[in-house]
Amino acid sequence: MQTEVENIAGYDYDTKEAAISPVTTKELDQLMQTISLDSEDLRYLRLAGEVLENQTESIVNAWRGVISSTPHLAIYFKDANGNTDESYKMMVKERFKQWIMDVCTKPYDQDWLNYQHKIGLWHTNETNAAQTPSHIPLRYIIGFSAVVNDTIKPFLVRNGHSLSVIEKMHKAWCKAVLLHVTLWTRAYCIEGEW
Amino acid sequence: MQTEVENIAGYDYDTKEAAISPVTTKELDQLMQTISLDSEDLRYLRLAGEVLENQTESIVNAWRGVISSTPHLAIYFKDANGNTDESYKMMVKERFKQWIMDVCTKPYDQDWLNYQHKIGLWHTNETNAAQTPSHIPLRYIIGFSAVVNDTIKPFLVRNGHSLSVIEKMHKAWCKAVLLHVTLWTRAYCIEGEW
Repeated sequence: MQTEVENIAGYDYDTKEAAISPVTTKELDQLMQTISLDSEDLRYLRLAGEVLENQTESIVNAWRGVISSTPHLAIYFKDANGNTDESYKMMVKERFKQWIMDVCTKPYDQDWLNYQHKIGLWHTNETNAAQTPSHIPLRYIIGFSAVVNDTIKPFLVRNGHSLSVIEKMHKAWCKAVLLHVTLWTRAYCIEGEW
Repeated sequence: MQTEVENIAGYDYDTKEAAISPVTTKELDQLMQTISLDSEDLRYLRLAGEVLENQTESIVNAWRGVISSTPHLAIYFKDANGNTDESYKMMVKERFKQWIMDVCTKPYDQDWLNYQHKIGLWHTNETNAAQTPSHIPLRYIIGFSAVVNDTIKPFLVRNGHSLSVIEKMHKAWCKAVLLHVTLWTRAYCIEGEW
């Protein structure tokens, strides 16, 4: 697993190259309280991580299916001539797959905060050598979380947990996605507004 | 019903006093597609409206219970001396109750867009004659939607619909709340970032 993670381009989680998040630990705590993301949710996220571990390729493919069939979203994988940037798409796929596992398994600490900050910056000003548009509007980042939350459910049922446990995993997932998206919005905000 | 709505202070929905939203109809359509909020969801929202119609007071009280017990949120109903601004709280309660019905029943048209724009402006620069803080950070606006979505569920079960119908009403509600919150974020964004 470790070797694989080391091979994910741009995945500089927990390295000196990561940007430092301007979000304080106190702000993070208060945001988690606002979302009501509690210790029970974190336990169900760990469980969701076990269920999703071998399905991340299929999950990202499901999201990409929706993106590909939505013209105003599909352009973010295309160059100025309308051709899909396959190498970029392949590179970020590995980061997306790893993101699913990180949502479920990582401690929400300073390293994690720093990486969320970097994801926010990526979306506002793409630093990869990609041919795709460099800026993704905030409304699509927030809006697409509905798809991310809807599509995860069939993947959560695969390990035969009870309906009640599946519901709790799903609720925890939705709260965690909201936490991530909220952190990413910081890069889009007027100073002091976030 | 009409007389009641006319008595809601600040509820200038569909009047000349409403601000004009900078969001275009095309942007709205694409945002609804991004959220995958479709005609089936709109039908289930109408049904949810029938279920919630006589429960809006209790729903807002449930949200306020969470806010009151969360010190960093409770301050937004208090003046500089830490005293609750009861008249402000009473005034916005009526708007919140009406908002629940609007989410479920209003056509998502220009009047509705304009009113969402006004709500965004209210949160960034309070224009009521209130003693409470004039600015609510964006992270709390987005984050609290998790509570709004969680707490609505027990209210959706009251009319004895099947579990499957309740699930569909809830999914439609969550998407609609995300749409509203996404529109409100515009007032917080750097020009061109939204």
